[in-house]
Amino acid sequence: MNEFIASVALEKAYRLINHGPTVLVSARHDGVQDVMAAAWATGLDFSPAKILVVLDKIAKTRQLVEGSESFVIQVPTVAQITLTHAVGTRSLFTEPDKLANCGVELFSFDGFDLPFVAGCSAWLACRLINEPHNQQAHDLFIGEVVGAWADSRVFSEGHWHFDRADPALRSLHYVAGGQFYATGESLNVLDGSEGN
Amino acid sequence: MNEFIASVALEKAYRLINHGPTVLVSARHDGVQDVMAAAWATGLDFSPAKILVVLDKIAKTRQLVEGSESFVIQVPTVAQITLTHAVGTRSLFTEPDKLANCGVELFSFDGFDLPFVAGCSAWLACRLINEPHNQQAHDLFIGEVVGAWADSRVFSEGHWHFDRADPALRSLHYVAGGQFYATGESLNVLDGSEGN
Repeated sequence: MNEFIASVALEKAYRLINHGPTVLVSARHDGVQDVMAAAWATGLDFSPAKILVVLDKIAKTRQLVEGSESFVIQVPTVAQITLTHAVGTRSLFTEPDKLANCGVELFSFDGFDLPFVAGCSAWLACRLINEPHNQQAHDLFIGEVVGAWADSRVFSEGHWHFDRADPALRSLHYVAGGQFYATGESLNVLDGSEGN
Repeated sequence: MNEFIASVALEKAYRLINHGPTVLVSARHDGVQDVMAAAWATGLDFSPAKILVVLDKIAKTRQLVEGSESFVIQVPTVAQITLTHAVGTRSLFTEPDKLANCGVELFSFDGFDLPFVAGCSAWLACRLINEPHNQQAHDLFIGEVVGAWADSRVFSEGHWHFDRADPALRSLHYVAGGQFYATGESLNVLDGSEGN
């Protein structure tokens, strides 16, 4: 855990993923922990803050979410593109040392028995809202956000500040075939900088 | 409809929103049509292609989706930032001329009785998969993608090409308070251009 990490008010936690980044999902159950990548995650409600994420049945992380009824959604950075792609394409089912091999370092926040991935720009600790139909029919998991933190070098006072931070701290947006986009230029509709 | 629009194979339709852009949602029922903005939309399945979107109960567009059981998800461009923010903050309930006032121009694709917003970079025609619990409890709407198209200047052969196209065609990623990020630099994990 680095010195720049600061807590984020739960009612503003949606802003950590509102720009649509690819996220990392982590969970731990019965001493087993795993991390995967997910492009299909989004906000669901403001207060109480809820998010949703699609977790395929082939993912070990999904089993751990079902077992522990909790998980972390975190926002990886451009500096973590190799890690993000690796945890999204390799499986703990066939590679017991997956996390070490992918360069994942985990840490904790006091009071949360969850595995948080070091080096990310934001973290949302979630309690699973168990909905068997959504989980079975759609691979869709809903979480209530019970803790939120961000790297204050790039998110503070309820807003991202990608424009003034190290570009390596920008978020990733996955398309397919190993290709991502970084989050780009900030545009504000109110100051007329709309580029048209 | 412009000369650059080309159809997209349904199994690749998820790529049109996989990078997490803010989208426009449009629908028509009983002669009434509306368009709204939604930051909370994501892929849900590859084949058949499904997407999900969160539609608040205060939105007239939601009523039209419920009535017609169909809708369009489209990807607005940087050039449409003012339009996107306007349709996301103004309501047809209180402003009957909302669409004209927001500068929305609608068009059609043959065989689809749906209102498509001109000037976007991609369009996904969706049939509502009616799930009353998700709609009532979570404002969550699931659609099967039954038609997909993109502006071939910026999406072709299953991939976005933001780097070589006019920056005004990039996607928008909303945060809050009128502030968006444009889609940024292309990074490919396989060629080592990960910026770290």
